[in-house]
Amino acid sequence: MIFVGFGFLMTFLQRYGYSSVGFNFLLAAFGIQWALLMQGWLQSFDGRYILVDLENLINADFCVGSVCVAFGAVLGKVSPVQLLIMTLFQVTLFSINEYILLNLLEVKDSGGSMTIHAFGAYFGLTVAWILYRPNLHHSKERQSSTYHSDLFAMIGTLFLWMYWPSFNSAISNHGDAQHRAVINTYCSLAACVLTSVALSSALHRKGKLDMVHIQNATLAGGVGLGTVAELMVLPFGSLIIGFVCGIVSTLGFVYLTPFLESRLHIQDTCGVHNLHGIPGIIGGIAGAVTASIANIDLYGEEGLAYAFGIERSKLNWSPNTQGRFQAAGLFVSLAMALAGGVIVGVILRLPFWGQAPDENCFEDAVYWEIPKEPKSTALRSEDSSIKPPEP
Amino acid sequence: MIFVGFGFLMTFLQRYGYSSVGFNFLLAAFGIQWALLMQGWLQSFDGRYILVDLENLINADFCVGSVCVAFGAVLGKVSPVQLLIMTLFQVTLFSINEYILLNLLEVKDSGGSMTIHAFGAYFGLTVAWILYRPNLHHSKERQSSTYHSDLFAMIGTLFLWMYWPSFNSAISNHGDAQHRAVINTYCSLAACVLTSVALSSALHRKGKLDMVHIQNATLAGGVGLGTVAELMVLPFGSLIIGFVCGIVSTLGFVYLTPFLESRLHIQDTCGVHNLHGIPGIIGGIAGAVTASIANIDLYGEEGLAYAFGIERSKLNWSPNTQGRFQAAGLFVSLAMALAGGVIVGVILRLPFWGQAPDENCFEDAVYWEIPKEPKSTALRSEDSSIKPPEP
Amino acid sequence: MIFVGFGFLMTFLQRYGYSSVGFNFLLAAFGIQWALLMQGWLQSFDGRYILVDLENLINADFCVGSVCVAFGAVLGKVSPVQLLIMTLFQVTLFSINEYILLNLLEVKDSGGSMTIHAFGAYFGLTVAWILYRPNLHHSKERQSSTYHSDLFAMIGTLFLWMYWPSFNSAISNHGDAQHRAVINTYCSLAACVLTSVALSSALHRKGKLDMVHIQNATLAGGVGLGTVAELMVLPFGSLIIGFVCGIVSTLGFVYLTPFLESRLHIQDTCGVHNLHGIPGIIGGIAGAVTASIANIDLYGEEGLAYAFGIERSKLNWSPNTQGRFQAAGLFVSLAMALAGGVIVGVILRLPFWGQAPDENCFEDAVYWEIPKEPKSTALRSEDSSIKPPEP
Repeated sequence: MIFVGFGFLMTFLQRYGYSSVGFNFLLAAFGIQWALLMQGWLQSFDGRYILVDLENLINADFCVGSVCVAFGAVLGKVSPVQLLIMTLFQVTLFSINEYILLNLLEVKDSGGSMTIHAFGAYFGLTVAWILYRPNLHHSKERQSSTYHSDLFAMIGTLFLWMYWPSFNSAISNHGDAQHRAVINTYCSLAACVLTSVALSSALHRKGKLDMVHIQNATLAGGVGLGTVAELMVLPFGSLIIGFVCGIVSTLGFVYLTPFLESRLHIQDTCGVHNLHGIPGIIGGIAGAVTASIANIDLYGEEGLAYAFGIERSKLNWSPNTQGRFQAAGLFVSLAMALAGGVIVGVILRLPFWGQAPDENCFEDAVYWEIPKEPKSTALRSEDSSIKPPEP
Repeated sequence: MIFVGFGFLMTFLQRYGYSSVGFNFLLAAFGIQWALLMQGWLQSFDGRYILVDLENLINADFCVGSVCVAFGAVLGKVSPVQLLIMTLFQVTLFSINEYILLNLLEVKDSGGSMTIHAFGAYFGLTVAWILYRPNLHHSKERQSSTYHSDLFAMIGTLFLWMYWPSFNSAISNHGDAQHRAVINTYCSLAACVLTSVALSSALHRKGKLDMVHIQNATLAGGVGLGTVAELMVLPFGSLIIGFVCGIVSTLGFVYLTPFLESRLHIQDTCGVHNLHGIPGIIGGIAGAVTASIANIDLYGEEGLAYAFGIERSKLNWSPNTQGRFQAAGLFVSLAMALAGGVIVGVILRLPFWGQAPDENCFEDAVYWEIPKEPKSTALRSEDSSIKPPEP
Repeated sequence: MIFVGFGFLMTFLQRYGYSSVGFNFLLAAFGIQWALLMQGWLQSFDGRYILVDLENLINADFCVGSVCVAFGAVLGKVSPVQLLIMTLFQVTLFSINEYILLNLLEVKDSGGSMTIHAFGAYFGLTVAWILYRPNLHHSKERQSSTYHSDLFAMIGTLFLWMYWPSFNSAISNHGDAQHRAVINTYCSLAACVLTSVALSSALHRKGKLDMVHIQNATLAGGVGLGTVAELMVLPFGSLIIGFVCGIVSTLGFVYLTPFLESRLHIQDTCGVHNLHGIPGIIGGIAGAVTASIANIDLYGEEGLAYAFGIERSKLNWSPNTQGRFQAAGLFVSLAMALAGGVIVGVILRLPFWGQAPDENCFEDAVYWEIPKEPKSTALRSEDSSIKPPEP
């Protein structure tokens, strides 16, 4: 499971060519080692050794997932060195944030709506905001997809889509909770696809579909269910969450991303705000609400104790308290993301990290040997490949 | 397993670009929800709730598999609205057919040769027959593959190929039967690949291979083994079935598909008749024969009871009876497919479902925002992409 | 697991178009059947039946993996008939070699550094040496990648990367050993990625990355850990092996492959010497060293007995002996590969196997129906597809 999960995180951004795949691969391999160390120090350090087992690998993997989300926001505008620095800091912050949420606040967040998606997205967006490039429009013609690159991206989407239920259930308690997480996520994703497709068509003046929505908004249902997947939201609740996430995410791509860019000066390359940011917050809120209304009728006495791990730790536990802690967890995540993003962004603004100039963003040839085509204009050959031959 | 299974069904038709992947995604997400409800009502409705567990998800997934097969026959010629209507009806019919076969006739069909493949293929072909477009040749130049689209399709083929053993064994009884299903399917697939390649080369006047055969006929062995996978066909029997399916399927692509189109007016876009139709029937017949010759020597007394679930239900059971019921199951499936296909086809002929005109079939630009290329001729950019540049 | 493993072996060479994928598929399907028979005869023949269970399928799969490695060395220069003959002989030799190593020398080689990678690579290289084509430069312009073909290849790399831990642990003893194999392989692969990327950038005069290194050298860490994966190398040892393999493999691509071709007349199409050959030898040596220093302090008494299966077979066993046997195993593998490669190479030199002439190597159109493009120059349409349109 973990390796598959890892894989999809890397194919995720495939359409942006060499850099997307290659840098993602690089930061994932670096991030997972650093995450193993950080999480080991925080959670299983016994003075001499840290524990490395499969669950740790999965946790490190999730941590890297968060970095990949942030990568999506700054994609094409940073150098590999900047990426590694960002990974270094983000993994550290992620581990601290996760420690606060899971160990201090004892929040449930098995699929990481808050720790992975909301944290990663707002961290990345803050960094993108600090790194705002006013002249990015010089690279604008390369910041779009082509027919084939969209098909490559669709491979990533389908992979993410089909492994999301495994992702959300990977670190749930075994048995019922895991089972529940799979089915809930599945329902949410299915509802989300229908909503996204319908809305994408409805928002186009001629009723056509936009591939960007299909690639991204269809996954928002999985993000939104990250926190509550293993709780008793029932298929009905999952469908509603998927429905809401699909709507919000598609609307976000159509209206919010241009607004963020023109007014707030946040250049969000992959639209992570729509896919991870807002659905992550929705997931966090859904988690708080679901926890608040948990009761013995719904879970049974043992089920309740098991689902929230009560006996082990809290004597004066009540669903209401849990709900507040969930909400607090969401705020902590967002605060960490914003504060951390500002700091890391400022560090990355330093001018000696090998950044590409504004007119060379989204350009593989800056960092890669590109096969053939000795054209000095250094267009991405991907783009030129489908230009119609003009005599 | 289920999510992987689901995934491959969606990558299956990838080469036809946005519409294939996108619409397949859409109908799968819609179909699985509707299938969960339909199968739930028919099989586990207790007055208030239906059961939703992993096995139900797998069953719903199989049901959607059948819809995807039918989708292959009408691909490129129907609108998304028509597809959703077709899905709605086909899932309903599939559930009823499955209920008749598995619960009333007590037929073995773990990999769905009859319920999924034969039913789906002939249902789709009947719909395609009703929707016959006499002027389709206007879109003929877009109904072929390109170098890159064939590689995309090959990804789908390899995925299907390697998950087929899991597919055929997913709902088998655990233990021996499941183990057997995996190994038998594997042998059949391997034999089928060799036969298809050899025959594809033999049928070409210069001995060259045809990618269409490699993509499709190599999978026929898995289809053909759908019914008998978990029974005692022995590796030897599996190899024979794979061998026969490979031959029949390749011959079908070369001779039968053109014949169907020119004489019977059935335009079978993906050749589902060769990959799912005939091998599905072969699988059904193989199931009837294998069941007829089952005996205590081969299975052992307990094995026999376990394989066919005798004690639980039938006192006067004999292999011969089982064989007849298997054959009856095949006929019921085909009858349901033809009758249902006619009804649904007539409904889909109504002129207000947003069909594309004949000259715009196999054309993404009708339903999708296509990136760049403001060419008004609206060629699929995929095609234009590999046209050699002519000065 | 096995089917996934099988799948990645086939997507492995995807970038070389139809022939790579198609022929790989063909030889895998043929090889696995032949390997089942060969390995069955050698290891589980009881006079009438051979055993076919999942473990045998995995073993046959590994055997085919070795053939795919050798295929990488001769890719583009042999006909399908030659490939089938090579598969036939190589599977036979592989089974004998495996039998000698595992059953006679009682060597540990769970991930196959020696039996799969070193054997396959040097077998393939020897065949390529015998089949040296002095005029291959006529096909040189087709022996390179394009932007899209590199992305296809990257799909293969990511798949291999993420399933390698499963691959190395597939036939380990269950429990601790398997667990250890996964984690060790994972660490090694992660270290290898970082090293390869850093070195690839350092070796380029402008600090750019080369896609070939990212695609190949990143995997060397998995090859190098094949023998020791399940032993107590500790994450630290794994990181070192991954580090060394990454360096050696990247250096190999930059300096060794051109040297092999110009001086030793070995045309190594995919650079299997760098990815499988040297890392396989490193793995073998690491295995010998690790076995030599095994002691009761590190493993515990039971652990030691279990890891090396002592009680069962050897009374006068000592880690030192085991180390020597490991080294002997490596030499036997190499000797078998070289001797076998010479014999098979000579057989394949016979002029009636349908080889393509030197100027048509790396050319799909020789063996495949290529869609469209009636160009008689028979360039691979993949290449022409991304040539910039020149008015």
